[in-house]
Amino acid sequence: MQYPQIPAFAAQPGLIRLIGHRGARGVLPENTMEGFAFALTAGVELLELDVTATRDGVAVITHNHRLTRSMIRGADGCWLQGEEPKVSALTYAGLQAYDAGGLDGRSAYGQRFPDQAFLTGVRIPRLADLLALLQQPEHQNVHLLLEIKSDPELLGDTAARQALVEAVVSEVRQAKMQPRTVLHSFDWDLLADCQRIAPEMPASFLTQLPDNADDVGEDSSKAVNPVAGCSALDLPDRVAAAGGQFWCPYFLDITADSLARARALGLVTVVWTVNEPEDIERMIALGVDAICTDYPGRVQRQLLMHGLHWRAD
Amino acid sequence: MQYPQIPAFAAQPGLIRLIGHRGARGVLPENTMEGFAFALTAGVELLELDVTATRDGVAVITHNHRLTRSMIRGADGCWLQGEEPKVSALTYAGLQAYDAGGLDGRSAYGQRFPDQAFLTGVRIPRLADLLALLQQPEHQNVHLLLEIKSDPELLGDTAARQALVEAVVSEVRQAKMQPRTVLHSFDWDLLADCQRIAPEMPASFLTQLPDNADDVGEDSSKAVNPVAGCSALDLPDRVAAAGGQFWCPYFLDITADSLARARALGLVTVVWTVNEPEDIERMIALGVDAICTDYPGRVQRQLLMHGLHWRAD
Repeated sequence: MQYPQIPAFAAQPGLIRLIGHRGARGVLPENTMEGFAFALTAGVELLELDVTATRDGVAVITHNHRLTRSMIRGADGCWLQGEEPKVSALTYAGLQAYDAGGLDGRSAYGQRFPDQAFLTGVRIPRLADLLALLQQPEHQNVHLLLEIKSDPELLGDTAARQALVEAVVSEVRQAKMQPRTVLHSFDWDLLADCQRIAPEMPASFLTQLPDNADDVGEDSSKAVNPVAGCSALDLPDRVAAAGGQFWCPYFLDITADSLARARALGLVTVVWTVNEPEDIERMIALGVDAICTDYPGRVQRQLLMHGLHWRAD
Repeated sequence: MQYPQIPAFAAQPGLIRLIGHRGARGVLPENTMEGFAFALTAGVELLELDVTATRDGVAVITHNHRLTRSMIRGADGCWLQGEEPKVSALTYAGLQAYDAGGLDGRSAYGQRFPDQAFLTGVRIPRLADLLALLQQPEHQNVHLLLEIKSDPELLGDTAARQALVEAVVSEVRQAKMQPRTVLHSFDWDLLADCQRIAPEMPASFLTQLPDNADDVGEDSSKAVNPVAGCSALDLPDRVAAAGGQFWCPYFLDITADSLARARALGLVTVVWTVNEPEDIERMIALGVDAICTDYPGRVQRQLLMHGLHWRAD
């Protein structure tokens, strides 16, 4: 099968692709329409985002399964305290009471993004909101790396997982965005569902070796990522054996050998989340297909310094 | 005279004001509609910008008198080489051939803003473009700190200076934006023209003591700034004697004593351009009225950590 999504994400002579992580998390609150709009303004044509579903089955764009104290404020304007509500236990209407517009600088998570702007009145968007924006003619070249978040508390619940995949795929198809969408997950069982339910969209396999996992303040994906005991060099073969088209390793895990192996297997290799100048340099030197970053301007600058660009026009 | 602009820029209990410098120069190309739009999205209600005029008398938003190699690309997509054209020697139509969308990372100026996004097809805007945006109802609380750039080659040319002031004031009045605009300059003769021609707008006096001047890669304002030989403590009295309402010192020049003196004289004190966390901290501790920054998110974060905000809502 020829996937039109693959050339959009694959490196070409003179091009390494740039993916805006959760929009542009270093600049604006993650997974918000404001963040995606900024990335588009900055000429970023590949957007990474996280999707899960509300209790009433609305696909919404948010990373963690619970509304997280460090990033969500309640109706009183204060960051949440006490138990963090589950997104899947709230209706979409109920979600509107929460403000996703700014990080708590006292939290470890907030301290990771000291330049992020603070907005008020920002709602967790629906997947449909972003898809509608990208149907505008000026965004016809924009592609999505759409991560589906499987609930660690429902790992054994096949029906719940399939219902989530079906809800997401149905939204994407309704917007006729399937030729511009790649389905992406840490949960390889969920990706198997994606491959069966939506064979027209490439499957993108996230990996993170346990030794390098260090994303402070975020939902961990260790529980769902079947790579314990693997070495970096094993990963591309594992992805290819699972029928994947994209391999998305954590940037500290990738090596020249594993990248070469991925290329030999015909995989598109996307590294995440690359934010520090020296790490960006190393990824450019390795020659990955695409760099997923919270700081699009920083990656653009370094690509240009190497005479490279991130899009073909 | 009561100026409605003054409460918009003055500190209040719980509030220190935040001004987006040239939009948000750390994030997006300076003095562009894209940069101003970002600042507005980020909840910044006070915008600083620089205005000069083309040969055909169009007020345009740009800082340097010449199209500068490090920040302007020609029709070939390359940063300018050779002699830098003067803005005042080009027509507005002629300016459209140039792209103001990105910095050259090889230049000293470019290296000052490593996170700035790189855009293509960005034109130097007219003052009228920004004024039209701000007339939209959702921007009714936005105020401008409008710097008028006097051409160092025309310092003796009183008629040219007055024509520039008149062109700017006429645009502002046509948009009915004078109650939301402060006229701002390093050139105190030009500010005297402003006070005479447009007494309904406060005059904002920029100062920078020669010892601390270090803005690499920008037009210097030393030639027009009559503060040589002054100490920090002299400056507020000089501004008050000139009939100013705003004193805008370079942030390294201000002291607790000079701020107290400015306050005793009834001046609004705006510091520029404050980008590093430790400098932002010092300005918050001093208790200035407003902080002008290239990184609005960074200042927002630090204000919030002190329980402060930047706007009254």
